[in-house]
Formats: sequence, C-alpha cells, structure tokens
Amino acid sequence: VTGNTNLDFIFNPRSAAIVGISANAEPNSTNTAATYLESFLSGGFSGPIYPINHKGGEIRGRKIYPNVKDVPGPLDYVICCIQAPFVPQLIKDCAAKGVKVVQFFTAGFTESETEKGRELQEEIVALARQGGIRLIGPNCMGVYCPGTGVSFAPDFPKESGKVGYICQSGGNAHFGIRYAVQRGVHFSKVVSYGNACDVDESDLLEYLTADPETEIIAVYIEGVKDGKRFVRALKEAVAVKPVIVLKGGRTDAGARAAASHTGTLAGSSRVWEGVLRQLGVATVNSVEELADLLVTFLYLPVPMCPRLGTIGISGGATVIATDVYSSAGLVLPHLPLEVQQELRRLVKSEAGLSFDNPVDISSSYYSSVNYHGFKILAECDRIDIALFHLPLSIMPRTHSLDTRAALWVLDHAVKVKKESNKPIGAVVYNIVGAEGWETALKCQELCHGVGIPVYFSIDSAAKAISRFVTYHERRETRRQ
Amino acid sequence: VTGNTNLDFIFNPRSAAIVGISANAEPNSTNTAATYLESFLSGGFSGPIYPINHKGGEIRGRKIYPNVKDVPGPLDYVICCIQAPFVPQLIKDCAAKGVKVVQFFTAGFTESETEKGRELQEEIVALARQGGIRLIGPNCMGVYCPGTGVSFAPDFPKESGKVGYICQSGGNAHFGIRYAVQRGVHFSKVVSYGNACDVDESDLLEYLTADPETEIIAVYIEGVKDGKRFVRALKEAVAVKPVIVLKGGRTDAGARAAASHTGTLAGSSRVWEGVLRQLGVATVNSVEELADLLVTFLYLPVPMCPRLGTIGISGGATVIATDVYSSAGLVLPHLPLEVQQELRRLVKSEAGLSFDNPVDISSSYYSSVNYHGFKILAECDRIDIALFHLPLSIMPRTHSLDTRAALWVLDHAVKVKKESNKPIGAVVYNIVGAEGWETALKCQELCHGVGIPVYFSIDSAAKAISRFVTYHERRETRRQ
Repeated sequence: VTGNTNLDFIFNPRSAAIVGISANAEPNSTNTAATYLESFLSGGFSGPIYPINHKGGEIRGRKIYPNVKDVPGPLDYVICCIQAPFVPQLIKDCAAKGVKVVQFFTAGFTESETEKGRELQEEIVALARQGGIRLIGPNCMGVYCPGTGVSFAPDFPKESGKVGYICQSGGNAHFGIRYAVQRGVHFSKVVSYGNACDVDESDLLEYLTADPETEIIAVYIEGVKDGKRFVRALKEAVAVKPVIVLKGGRTDAGARAAASHTGTLAGSSRVWEGVLRQLGVATVNSVEELADLLVTFLYLPVPMCPRLGTIGISGGATVIATDVYSSAGLVLPHLPLEVQQELRRLVKSEAGLSFDNPVDISSSYYSSVNYHGFKILAECDRIDIALFHLPLSIMPRTHSLDTRAALWVLDHAVKVKKESNKPIGAVVYNIVGAEGWETALKCQELCHGVGIPVYFSIDSAAKAISRFVTYHERRETRRQ
Repeated sequence: VTGNTNLDFIFNPRSAAIVGISANAEPNSTNTAATYLESFLSGGFSGPIYPINHKGGEIRGRKIYPNVKDVPGPLDYVICCIQAPFVPQLIKDCAAKGVKVVQFFTAGFTESETEKGRELQEEIVALARQGGIRLIGPNCMGVYCPGTGVSFAPDFPKESGKVGYICQSGGNAHFGIRYAVQRGVHFSKVVSYGNACDVDESDLLEYLTADPETEIIAVYIEGVKDGKRFVRALKEAVAVKPVIVLKGGRTDAGARAAASHTGTLAGSSRVWEGVLRQLGVATVNSVEELADLLVTFLYLPVPMCPRLGTIGISGGATVIATDVYSSAGLVLPHLPLEVQQELRRLVKSEAGLSFDNPVDISSSYYSSVNYHGFKILAECDRIDIALFHLPLSIMPRTHSLDTRAALWVLDHAVKVKKESNKPIGAVVYNIVGAEGWETALKCQELCHGVGIPVYFSIDSAAKAISRFVTYHERRETRRQ
C-alpha cells in the first residue's frame, strides 16, 4: 500500500456494511450506525447495504447480519461504529471477506492521548496492511460523495458540485457541508478523515488534485503527519486548481485544543502561515468565511482586479460599506464625470444622493431606475467588479423589502448580468429575523442561477472578494 | 438659543403635526408623512396628531388641516415632509403658531453640495432662531422615544430601554434600531439628526449624558461641526456612562462617501482614532458589531477580566473558536487538574474529548451532564467569564438541535447562572437557514431574561467581549 494510490474505489463501492447498528433503531434515533444507514438510503446508494450486529435482528425490514463474513455478496466498504477494543477482530473479519475500505466513526485511538489508544491504532493499521484494506479515520465521519450516495447525514443533498473538501474534523465536515449547501455550494467529494491512521491528508489532496470532478479544493486541517509531503501535495494542487485552507490551531491556544482533538501537532502557526502564503493558498478563519470564498471562486471570473464599484441605498450604509471595503484593501475609484452625469439624469433630486462611486440613488433604487443604474455602473471602464447592495431592513417593515420586492429589484440585476460581461456581485444585507433570512436565501438562489455571487453582509463580501483578488495577484506574481 | 439647553421638550411634545401628508394615503403606502402618522399612532403617542396639507382632505378619518396655523390646540412638534423650497414659509407659520420643534425629513440643503441648498439651510436656521424654534435635521428621520410614542417607524417597539442612540444617518438609525431590537436591546431615546443645522451631535450627547433614562450611549457619526466641543462632550459622557462610537468615514474612501451623504467633513481618520482611544470610547465598525457590544454592556458585569473558559461540543469547532478568541486578545487559561478530573468523571470515554480549557464534552453536551459541566466551569477560580457554546448544525438535521432541544440545553445554563455569581455568556452558532435563526432568537430570549448575553457567532462573541474587556482595562488605567 503506497500513499499515491488512486482512491477512486473509496468513493465508488459496490456494497456497504454498517457495523454496530441497533436492531429497530428509529430513523431519527441517535444511534450513529442507524444514521449512516439512513444517509446511504436517502443519498440513493445503488448497491446493497448490510446492517451488522452480533445480536442479529432487523432494522427497517432489513436483516441484521451477525458478522461482515455472513454478508451474501461481495463487500467493498465497511463503516465501523463499534467500540475500539472490538475493532481488531473486525479488521480480521473484513480481511477474510475481501473488504477494500473500513471507515471508523469509532474513536479511542491516538486522539485519546493514552498508551492503550496508540497501541490499538498501531494494531489495526498493521492488520489492515496485512489484509490489503485501506482505513479512513479513526475518529471521523467518513465520506460524502453525492454522485454515488456514500454519505454520513440524511439531510445532505444528492446534487453533486465542483468542490472537494478534506476535513480533519467531523464537526467541521458536518457544519461545513450544511453551511456551504445553504450558500449554494455543492460538493464532488468530502472526506472527514480524523486521525488519518492510513489514508491521510496528502493522499486525499493528491487524489482531489487529479480528480476531474473537483474544480476547487477546500481543506480544514489541524496538523499533518508528513509536512514535506503535504507541502509538495499542496504545491501540485495549487498549480492546477484553487486551494482554500482553514487551519485549525493557528494560535498557541488553538494548537493546544487541536492536540486534544485529533492528537496531531498543529505545528508553528508562523511556519504554517508562511508556507501557505508562499504556496499561494487562499486562507480563511472560519467555516462561514470558507463558504463565502467558495461562492466567490465559483461565480467570479478571473483574472480579477480590485477596482470595485458599488450602488445602493442609504447614505450611512454606503459610508460604512466603503470603510469596510477600503480597509480590506479594495479600491473604489472615482467614476468618470460623464458616467456620474448619466447616473444623475436617471434620478430626481433627492436626499443624500451620490453619483460618484460609491453610488447611492436612495429610494430610486426601489424603482425600475435601478436597472439603468446597475447597467451604467457595470459598463463603466474604471470598474472591475460591480457590487449591487440590497439592504433589506432600512425602511419600516410596513413598506420594507419583502421577498417579492427584493426579488423584483434583483431581477434587474439579473438582466444586467445577462447583458454585460463585467463581473457582478450582490450584497443582500441588513438582515433581520427569520423572515429576512428566507428572503436573503431566495435572492441568493435567483442570483447564483445567473452567476452573480451573493453575500449576506458587507463584511463577508469585503473579506471574500479581497481574498479572491489577493489569490489571483499572487498567482500573477509567481508567473512573472 | 444655546447648545446646552435641556432638550426634554423634544422628546415630550404635547401635540404633533405632520406636514406634507397625502390625503387617503394607505397605511402601507410609501408616503413618508403617512408613515410618520402610523408610527405615532402605533407608538401610542398620547397627544393630538394633526395631518397637514394645503389641499386639505382626510386621512384615516382624520381631518387634514391646510396649515399648521389652522390647528385647533397648541402645537409643540412639527414633522416636515414637504419639498425644501417650501420650508421657509413653514418655519414662519410654525413661529406664528408657537411651535417648539421642527424635524425635517425634507432634504436638499447643505448635503446637496449646492449653493442654493446651503443658502436655504442658512435661511431656515435664521428664521427658526427668530421664532424660538429648535430644528432637527434637515435630511433625517428624527426622533424615536418609546416612552412618549414619538417615532419614525410603525414597527419599532413601545418598550423603552437603557440605550440612547445618536445617529447622523437615517438608514443607520432605521437598521440600527431594528437590528438591536432583534438582539434584545431597547432604547431610551434615538435621534437621527442628519445635517444638524441647529440641534447637533454635541447638544444630543450632552443631553444623553445627563438623561437618567439612558445608561449606555451609542453614536453613529460621520463628522462634527465643532470638534473641540464634541470632544469635551464625549469626555464628560464617558466619565459617567459607557459610550460606543461607530465612526462613518474612517477611511479616505469612506470619508469621501460621507461628504456626499451628510455634507460634513469626516476629518482625519487617524485623528479620530487617536481621540476616541484616548478618551476611552469603545469603537465598532458596523451596526451589527454595535448591537453585539450593546448586548455585552447590558448583560456582563464589571469589572471584567479577560480569562475566558469555554465548554462545547465538536473538536473542530472548539479549535476554531480558540483561535478566534485568542486572536482577539482573550486568554484561555489551563484549568486546574482537579477541575479537569471533576469534568472527566462526568463523561464516559468518548471521541475527541478535552477536559482542559477549551472544554469539549462531545455529545454528553446534549445530556443533563451539561448542567454539571457548565457549573464546574463557571465556578472555576481561574475563569473570569464562562462561555457556553451551543452549535445548532453539527449533527444531521434528523437528530439535530431543533428549538426544543436547544432550549433544553440552555435551561441548564440558566440554572447555573442563577446559582453562580460568575459572568456567563452563550454562543448559539452554526446557524443554518431561517429555522436556525428562529431557534437562535428563542435561545436569546431565554438567556437575556436571566442576564446571559447571547452571541450568534464565535467571531462576534470574540470581538464584543474583547472590546468590553479593553474598555474596562482602559478605564482602570486612567483611574490609576
């Protein structure tokens, strides 16, 4: 077994078994093994799925087999949810059955920071090598591959996407997927790989680098086994597709927390920062920021320059937005006088207007005038990206932007996007309450459908666009 | 008329007139004057409210008077929504009627950056001085005083609170109130004062400093008329209550936007930053951050030290949180070994646990064990504030935290809060979708009810608590 194997078989098993399932566990139970069963079923996994428990019984009308060896057909993929001390015997049984991959929800290995845990992990790795089995985990959620229905949560979508995601943390895999999906981002393959006793971050990174379904790679990582190999893998990855890294343990206190979590050494934060920067990897500091940057990479064309033009309503919001964009290193150039005059002609004299960039056309924004304003700004030569600001809660709720009104405004943005070659983004912000969020999500759906990335705050737009611009500037610099 | 007048009469008018109302405007119309009428009515204003339009007619069964002079009783307060050229005559009529305050939604004065606008503003100021009338605005939303029903939006709550808010921008007044109210913050008095041709930022700051109903002062400001006086007013304010400033135009580009907006010079960002820092004013960069900091000032006791203890679920989320807190300057000290052992005894061996700070008790967090965990952490001597982390979307939705489950967990936090003297905060995060927001808002209601501030992301908790700690450290330093 070498690290550089093609791992396709992990994502395309013919059959799967889930070990440690409770007989008659309810669909919504907290029995993790039962949740894996639900996940494969709702993910549309096409092969047979065998529940396993030495006590036998039934679950959802399926026979529970006492042992993986009792399964009738060939068995490629095993999910292990039994307690750690029983794992060595399971590996032996899997070897006897000809299983290709065992994935471990089970924990209690090196991350427990005990001698016993470390020994147990060494034992199962040795047994797997002997049996020709690859291991994922332990202490992880495993694989989500919408294309084949391998999954670890019943609510993950069946729809495939362009993002490959490698995640050392099960929680950050769960939330990362769920949050990104809400943001309109879908995945080719996700692997929560935990302690990485066999298949590790470098194997997975190399695999995603070569994977034609993956166009962007996202990584949550706390520490690596083999730093040199990982840096080489990162370098090869960035050469062919964008790589975004969320580094857990980038501070001393965070590194200490990471040691307790996955038992890995997080390494010096300064070394990491320097290496990632030098390699031209984009970095983020939270799962939410990761999703914002993925949206940006998915929808904004390259090359991107940093000259931003904005149009919106409300002077105060415009001023704050300008401060935030400007602090993030984005440039808001003056508009040529003739463009300012063109904008001025659109609007009747009114409070607090500004026809220079940032453009504020006040309540005309809520009339069909906005279409012309959007278009004039998008077509201005001095602007590399036009951002349309749609605040939801500036007016009294009685005549504020409900979903219908917000979509009406953005329909004009969609029209301009179809008529223009300029990168266009939308910031749907000033969101208040659950209703506001519903409106914002519907706006996102409309805009993403035509390639307009949507952000839910000025701050997140500024961070994501600035990181995107920096990423491409560094690429250019390295090329020269 | 001097700047230092007691401005109580602005917030306590006996009667009000709204000039420029359209006959038969629908309650939800975009006629701003009609919205003011709705706002006073739903705010419970107890005096007579007179709609004014030279065309006469009726609105909502009320007679529209052609002129303020035709109003039957005494008239204290006039809201002006007519166009700028008609304003001088209105001021003359108001003087004849004995009006005390005129507030201008009307724009088209200095902020228009035209000679005509500037002259018109000078004219109305002179007329008002002659007539003994105080002016608010122009180019503003005016006053929201829940105690007396003076208001500019029908959806603002009737409930009074401890925060006084002075806001140069109408939009940031609207959104600031609406967003803060969602965060459980209520107001004593809010004034959106626009161009500040008469009553200005210093008058209002002095008033709020002396106002017994106001315990915390929030300010959105782009520029000032008289820098020295404003600095003096700020100094006097900080001496008696916390002051939080959101400075619009803190960058060069932002300052240019501010000039278009309210016609004021934003001033050098470095000078502002230095002055605010030296005076010990807390600063924020967005309305959302303002609300988070208000929540913190309202619910966390002083003095506050920066030693943070956290308890939660999910190793990855815990690692990221630690990085974010640590980067914000907060300290996560080790827990004493006996405290770690106490925590360890609570929980059965399980994946990725950590009994040192940050504490991660994994899925035991969702059992009644959490009460004991919260209590042990809150009572630890090395911890100045205990933060309970409640991620909503780490588990599959099928057995994830719905509202009921989230409130069940936080009920234990409430119990600990009642039994302990330690400052306690909650971070309800990993929020996905509108349902997630509903849950988060209900969690906030429960926690704020017992004095536990709630934050909706790790990032916002880190920023707000760090600013709060810094604010009190600077106070201490100045005292010594």
